Amino acid sequence: MNELAEYEVKRNRFTNNEKALAIGSRFWHETTQAGLAGIVADLGADGYFSTKENHRFINLSCCSYLDFDSHPHIIQGAVAALQKYRVMDHCISRVRVQMPALLELEDSLGALFGAKVTTAISASAASAGTLPLIASGHLSGGVRPVMVFDKHAHFSMNLYKATCADETEVVTIAHNDMNALEDLCKKHQHVAYVCDGTYSMGGFAPVTDLLALQEKYGLFLYFDDSHGLSILGKHGEGFIRSAMDRIHPRTVIVATLNKAFGASGAAIMFGENSHDNALLLERFGGPMAWSQPMNTAAIGGCLAAAELHRSPELAERQQRLQANIELFDSLVETDQRGNPFPIRLVKASHEHVLAAGVALYRAGFYVSPVFFPIVAKDKAGLRVMLRAGMSESQVRMLCQQILGQRLF
Amino acid sequence: MNELAEYEVKRNRFTNNEKALAIGSRFWHETTQAGLAGIVADLGADGYFSTKENHRFINLSCCSYLDFDSHPHIIQGAVAALQKYRVMDHCISRVRVQMPALLELEDSLGALFGAKVTTAISASAASAGTLPLIASGHLSGGVRPVMVFDKHAHFSMNLYKATCADETEVVTIAHNDMNALEDLCKKHQHVAYVCDGTYSMGGFAPVTDLLALQEKYGLFLYFDDSHGLSILGKHGEGFIRSAMDRIHPRTVIVATLNKAFGASGAAIMFGENSHDNALLLERFGGPMAWSQPMNTAAIGGCLAAAELHRSPELAERQQRLQANIELFDSLVETDQRGNPFPIRLVKASHEHVLAAGVALYRAGFYVSPVFFPIVAKDKAGLRVMLRAGMSESQVRMLCQQILGQRLF
Repeated sequence: MNELAEYEVKRNRFTNNEKALAIGSRFWHETTQAGLAGIVADLGADGYFSTKENHRFINLSCCSYLDFDSHPHIIQGAVAALQKYRVMDHCISRVRVQMPALLELEDSLGALFGAKVTTAISASAASAGTLPLIASGHLSGGVRPVMVFDKHAHFSMNLYKATCADETEVVTIAHNDMNALEDLCKKHQHVAYVCDGTYSMGGFAPVTDLLALQEKYGLFLYFDDSHGLSILGKHGEGFIRSAMDRIHPRTVIVATLNKAFGASGAAIMFGENSHDNALLLERFGGPMAWSQPMNTAAIGGCLAAAELHRSPELAERQQRLQANIELFDSLVETDQRGNPFPIRLVKASHEHVLAAGVALYRAGFYVSPVFFPIVAKDKAGLRVMLRAGMSESQVRMLCQQILGQRLF
Repeated sequence: MNELAEYEVKRNRFTNNEKALAIGSRFWHETTQAGLAGIVADLGADGYFSTKENHRFINLSCCSYLDFDSHPHIIQGAVAALQKYRVMDHCISRVRVQMPALLELEDSLGALFGAKVTTAISASAASAGTLPLIASGHLSGGVRPVMVFDKHAHFSMNLYKATCADETEVVTIAHNDMNALEDLCKKHQHVAYVCDGTYSMGGFAPVTDLLALQEKYGLFLYFDDSHGLSILGKHGEGFIRSAMDRIHPRTVIVATLNKAFGASGAAIMFGENSHDNALLLERFGGPMAWSQPMNTAAIGGCLAAAELHRSPELAERQQRLQANIELFDSLVETDQRGNPFPIRLVKASHEHVLAAGVALYRAGFYVSPVFFPIVAKDKAGLRVMLRAGMSESQVRMLCQQILGQRLF
């Protein structure tokens, strides 16, 4: 019994399902009761969803910020690859035998982003493969670093805290707490920091400060820039990649290809000469090493999306997104006003936020109400994700509807 | 320093990258030097790979055991879904808004396999989402079980040992050691066992014994039957699902849809009335809850593959696979002789196994030599994965070539 008791003391150092489910179940139950979760609907060619009860709405909880996901060129690219290769996934680890298509895609993305790129089926698979290798020092010069996670880092990274802690010390610090991070850099010779580029609830990483800490202390940086890819940068290289001239050997940027990029899969960016790292991931990077590369349609879709990222259409859509963000900001006040990211959190009281979300949905705009217990009672609000494909009148109508609700 | 020293003692309880990479790097270096890794080749319509040096070979390290992966109906299904839905992945968590296609697929697979089915982008994503919920008791009646992993369980499950150990006690037992497992069942009221259905190196789970332990002690069972799906069962429900009349509420079967099934993604099977479990995964099952469902092409490919699994073609291919396995067994002796699974390990000495693999590759057959340090020196051999699509003469030629090599 003593042995068990000793173990129990150390449980839930990193995650606590009981707590998470108690909180989340209440949130999802209330959201579902209000009719704002569990929606099944068809996406029409005009960008509107329709339920089988013929309710039509625009989805403002979708991360396809540039509306590339429905671009005919990307769909055609996926179809063309299926027709060319005549196989969905010839199941074998790519370490052994691979078809040239995935290499072609990685070269294309590498040239686009100014990086050595390797791919995964999702950003979470990329984290699953990469974070444990950072923990054991294999991506950071052979020495196991102290691994520091931002408290708001996405679940897809937090899931690997315990796995990393089986290799090295893991610490969680407050959101964007650069003082705490610098203290750790002073105290330990090798530190790795894990964070989102931009956060799904509206914040973003202080990338300039982080690069300064890297310069000063050799800090290793791991960014998940899934919400920042494509929407920023000349070739859509994203928020984080745009903030640096080149990718430092002690930096890894992961980003999904499902969101603004418009296709399916994920890219892992290293410095341009990091062939060794790419090979290491191919051999030992968990999901990247097993027989589950991106399927042929995803590869073809991504190749086509990369072409669009090289065309004038990228800048056009980036500009339309920025114009929509600016228009929204001119009409609705949020803490995010002025930043170039598409996520806005419109504050509302705990008492009124859900009813406001329901009213907006009825008016044809699906936004995500966030409220206690998933955020503190005074942090409730309506999360809005803007997209390039929205017309000016749609943005105006959305803002008008938001302002017409009782929020407090 | 004491604090750190204390931590270090507890590291690498579950995984040890330094050790794994030392072993694996040597293995992959030697395999690559021999020209048997890092092969880039095109797959032709005749099922042969061709390198750019025009070397042609049959891939006997591919898990597409029924050759469905290149079935025109599946490719056409993927294309049709892309053309119908005109979107690769409209990026939003399915908890909020989803298109009907994925639900249609899950219903189709559920009817096929006699199960409540939920999907994931890969079997490893399924494990990432499911295993921590088993550890915290949320899929096993509310009580945290002692979690017991088979020593040979696939890496994609072992990766989550540390995460599970943050919720409950985790134990690893010797491969298929039913005595050790029964001892644990006697000692602890709640035990969950995690294993492969069939192992990638040739073994398989003692499913009858496991079901007896479930009956006697209420043992919770988690199977990854990725190598067993499609090749066995009237509707290709797999090795594990075929071994039980119905799926017990304390059983979960996970299986990839990338291997014999012929498409892309993964299925998680619960008992037929387990809607609550499916909802739990949708909300809290890590990758299943984030905005990364199977892409449209994968959904369409899987729907078409499910149709093939309902057609006479399934039994035809299953029989052709069994005929090829029997023919192989009649000509080449292995420890696997007589079992219905397509993986055979032809024993060879450490000194000769790699050269034999090279000679076979030159003769047009790509098999995987396995040797020290990834297995013990006296366990070296050539791993052969047979497929339904091989003609009788190809199987005979393969066996002739194997027998013609110096193996010892």
